[in-house]
Amino acid sequence: MEFKISSVSTSLDQKLLNKINGKTKPLGSLGMLEKIAFQIGKIQNSLSPKIMNPTVVVFAGDHGITDDGVSFYPKSVSYEMLYNYMQGGAAINVFSRQHNIDFKVVDAGIDHDFDPALNIINKKIAYGTKNYRFEPAMTKNQCLEGFKRGADVIEGIHKEGCNFITFGEKGIGNTSSAALILSLLTDIKLEECVGKGTGLDKEGVKSKFDLLNEALQKYDGGNNPIDVLTQFGGFEVVMIVGAVLKAAELRMTMLIDGFIITSALLAASKIDPKVLGYCLFAHKSNEQAHIKMLNHLNAEPILDIGMRLGEGTGAMVCYPLVKSAVQFINEMASFQEAGVSESEEVETIS
Amino acid sequence: MEFKISSVSTSLDQKLLNKINGKTKPLGSLGMLEKIAFQIGKIQNSLSPKIMNPTVVVFAGDHGITDDGVSFYPKSVSYEMLYNYMQGGAAINVFSRQHNIDFKVVDAGIDHDFDPALNIINKKIAYGTKNYRFEPAMTKNQCLEGFKRGADVIEGIHKEGCNFITFGEKGIGNTSSAALILSLLTDIKLEECVGKGTGLDKEGVKSKFDLLNEALQKYDGGNNPIDVLTQFGGFEVVMIVGAVLKAAELRMTMLIDGFIITSALLAASKIDPKVLGYCLFAHKSNEQAHIKMLNHLNAEPILDIGMRLGEGTGAMVCYPLVKSAVQFINEMASFQEAGVSESEEVETIS
Repeated sequence: MEFKISSVSTSLDQKLLNKINGKTKPLGSLGMLEKIAFQIGKIQNSLSPKIMNPTVVVFAGDHGITDDGVSFYPKSVSYEMLYNYMQGGAAINVFSRQHNIDFKVVDAGIDHDFDPALNIINKKIAYGTKNYRFEPAMTKNQCLEGFKRGADVIEGIHKEGCNFITFGEKGIGNTSSAALILSLLTDIKLEECVGKGTGLDKEGVKSKFDLLNEALQKYDGGNNPIDVLTQFGGFEVVMIVGAVLKAAELRMTMLIDGFIITSALLAASKIDPKVLGYCLFAHKSNEQAHIKMLNHLNAEPILDIGMRLGEGTGAMVCYPLVKSAVQFINEMASFQEAGVSESEEVETIS
Repeated sequence: MEFKISSVSTSLDQKLLNKINGKTKPLGSLGMLEKIAFQIGKIQNSLSPKIMNPTVVVFAGDHGITDDGVSFYPKSVSYEMLYNYMQGGAAINVFSRQHNIDFKVVDAGIDHDFDPALNIINKKIAYGTKNYRFEPAMTKNQCLEGFKRGADVIEGIHKEGCNFITFGEKGIGNTSSAALILSLLTDIKLEECVGKGTGLDKEGVKSKFDLLNEALQKYDGGNNPIDVLTQFGGFEVVMIVGAVLKAAELRMTMLIDGFIITSALLAASKIDPKVLGYCLFAHKSNEQAHIKMLNHLNAEPILDIGMRLGEGTGAMVCYPLVKSAVQFINEMASFQEAGVSESEEVETIS
């Protein structure tokens, strides 16, 4: 499928800067909040950007590679955690409730049948991917179908009036997928891409690397993102790729979470780099290779608080800072409005 | 006045760790949020800590040194900004409204008479401090009276049911005060303590340093915090010192803002180091010496987003992260409660 993504607007750049600089504060003194306000203003092409119906969508899928023990937790945790989501007991539930964010869960390919009465959006492609040590994780058709289903989910959410979205993920084994995607799409050595995931110790990381390296050596495809995703992706990952591309097409602001979500964005950016203009980067994950991924994307994370939980929790915890940026540009008084003396010198924010 | 400050409790440490580790997430994966939850649990001596009636109090005072031009803005901005606060147009208004935090302003010593009908708490000690290039900023009695008045404000807020407090400040010239306090109380060279404040350029910083260095050379008192504050303090600074000491005595959790507030905490910690156990550190300010101050206090800031606005805005923007920490320890399900499989290995959080 085709995505028609426009570059973010530049037509209001100077007016946005003037509005930000005119607020009753020392120039530049809101730091990153000023950059965020500026960028959302560009995305919405508005001097008074608004966050409407903010939503987090968690895409979940299982990974064949977990048969080989790449994770600290058993594969069953993927579906068990979806029940936890439905009961409101997971971290992503707590934080999305705190910030009044609409929360949705998509079964992209979990190895479990859920009761249809549960409020899980069923987009299941298959009962988990194949083990990419021995064969491609999915077919090319499944990969493209994943793009489409992810895009469809976003289109539905957008129709409900949402212009601000974050993505979460659940899938035991998906840091393995993300490490391979990172290595193949950036030329960073696999060794530098593999990390502890949910909690492997040094030996565990070494054995995870050995397994993934074996799979990588066998792979004779190219570094085209669709080929890479077909070979090593997860169903949740390819749906997020489609979701990212569709969200950019719809000019939605995306608040990008950690290692897995950024790996999907990385793949999306190789399909169309203009997606990056619609993204804010919530945090630097404690999964060690995330910062390399962010650096490759020239992305500046807002938070650095040692989180590595997944589910979109980094983005959710960061959300109120993004909202602060939108609130200050809309609600703060200017020097003129407040009758406060300005300095005679003038700077521009960097 | 005497403050009777207890050490934070250690009796629940193991139970708090167990509760945090039992939540449905990889061990340690909420990073700094886990440390925050642990510390508030210790402060409140509770496995289910609560934030009650959170409040920000902005203390405002004028500084005689501004006659010599140490700031990018004229002194009148101090009182003009208090009018802005009363109209709800300042950054601290926007962010405290966003988070539903009670907002109070104290006139500690502004060089202006406010209409008593305005909702400003009048604790004015004098119409600004003296210029410490020529004489002590205040008398020792004024300094001690400042402690008392700051403590009284906090006692009143505590009586209204508040157990969580942040401090803000307004006072053109007060980064000069804070730089001198930092240098005298830590032996860091003054040169390393002076920064751009509200926006000085390199030459401005040099001339600010020259003025402050002259004042420092003339000073023949010791590094007792009360002597230092009497010589170089602001009325808002000494009231915050008293406020910090009283808040610790009342076992309130304090979320510490940037350079000025931390300078007051530094002074308070030299009176009683046990205050530090009640503090969380909201952010690393972009005022360059703040990180040196934090390092001296062995304090780990939560945010690092280039803010240097003052008013308590760093703490206010950080507040929802602290709330996330309290929410997760109270609301997240444990592995047992959610029926999610645990890993067989066990770690403890660091």
